[in-house]
Amino acid sequence: MENSLNKVISLVREVRDYPKEGIIFKDITPVLQDPKAFSTAIDSLADALTPIDFDYIAGIEARGFIIGSALAYRTGKGFIPIRKKGKLPYTTISREYALEYGNAAIEIHADAVRKGSRIVIVDDLLATGGSAKAASELVTEAGGDVKCLIFLIELEFLKGRERLSSNNIISLIKY
Amino acid sequence: MENSLNKVISLVREVRDYPKEGIIFKDITPVLQDPKAFSTAIDSLADALTPIDFDYIAGIEARGFIIGSALAYRTGKGFIPIRKKGKLPYTTISREYALEYGNAAIEIHADAVRKGSRIVIVDDLLATGGSAKAASELVTEAGGDVKCLIFLIELEFLKGRERLSSNNIISLIKY
Repeated sequence: MENSLNKVISLVREVRDYPKEGIIFKDITPVLQDPKAFSTAIDSLADALTPIDFDYIAGIEARGFIIGSALAYRTGKGFIPIRKKGKLPYTTISREYALEYGNAAIEIHADAVRKGSRIVIVDDLLATGGSAKAASELVTEAGGDVKCLIFLIELEFLKGRERLSSNNIISLIKY
Repeated sequence: MENSLNKVISLVREVRDYPKEGIIFKDITPVLQDPKAFSTAIDSLADALTPIDFDYIAGIEARGFIIGSALAYRTGKGFIPIRKKGKLPYTTISREYALEYGNAAIEIHADAVRKGSRIVIVDDLLATGGSAKAASELVTEAGGDVKCLIFLIELEFLKGRERLSSNNIISLIKY
């Protein structure tokens, strides 16, 4: 698995000045596209969740859908989408969070989380932790118990981990 | 499998007047949330693809990511995201398509499709076929060979199938 994870790491592409000047964006699309790397990434995330008892995977739109859905299938759990504002059709609860410029809001269906459900929140990448924190608060507000937050990639220098109150934060690849 | 698919069908929720008055929206989130229904849906889609030789699953943002990613994992293929304009970090090619009011555009990474790659395009639902048609043209323009378009749900009364040039269009649940 160690060697295969190196293959995953080698396929993460750095794109300079995206989404704006000075940022080096970690592009995971070459990982997704490679069948071996993609399945290794999902299997490794599933392995990391083995010690955790949980009921649902909640994925954050949109790249968190790609990682989260395959991970839910692999672990035999249900999948709950956390979406951008206005994208879920039924009754929602929502939470705003700060971006570098302005605010964004994410939503979850009000009936998506049964009281006490044990939830793992998934996204592709942990940066400053803004959206992960909002997702975590949203799940908690909906009555869920956030057991873990898991990411394919963590940008450690942005210290997003420190903003999250969960004491169970997992990432496969750290920069 | 027949009986399990009935469970999937029973979990599709009808939401009235979303996204606008007069529309009855088919909400698949209760299907995704139910571990058994979710895995049955993915397994059934994978079974339907058994006779088709293909290399990649291309999923259309955003619900097509949820279905497509799990399906790519299940079938052991790579996953290619087709995204809304401006969301892919690397060099893209894009295609506009008409919505009821105005236009939308979707994009694919220019290097995502090797010449002659055999692609299956996935979305949750086939309605009028606008985005599926644009996705299909985009993959073809990128050099890919669209082997099949597959959907969890097809709204047959909207005749989206007739707009698509592919002769291989699969849907699991028809209304």
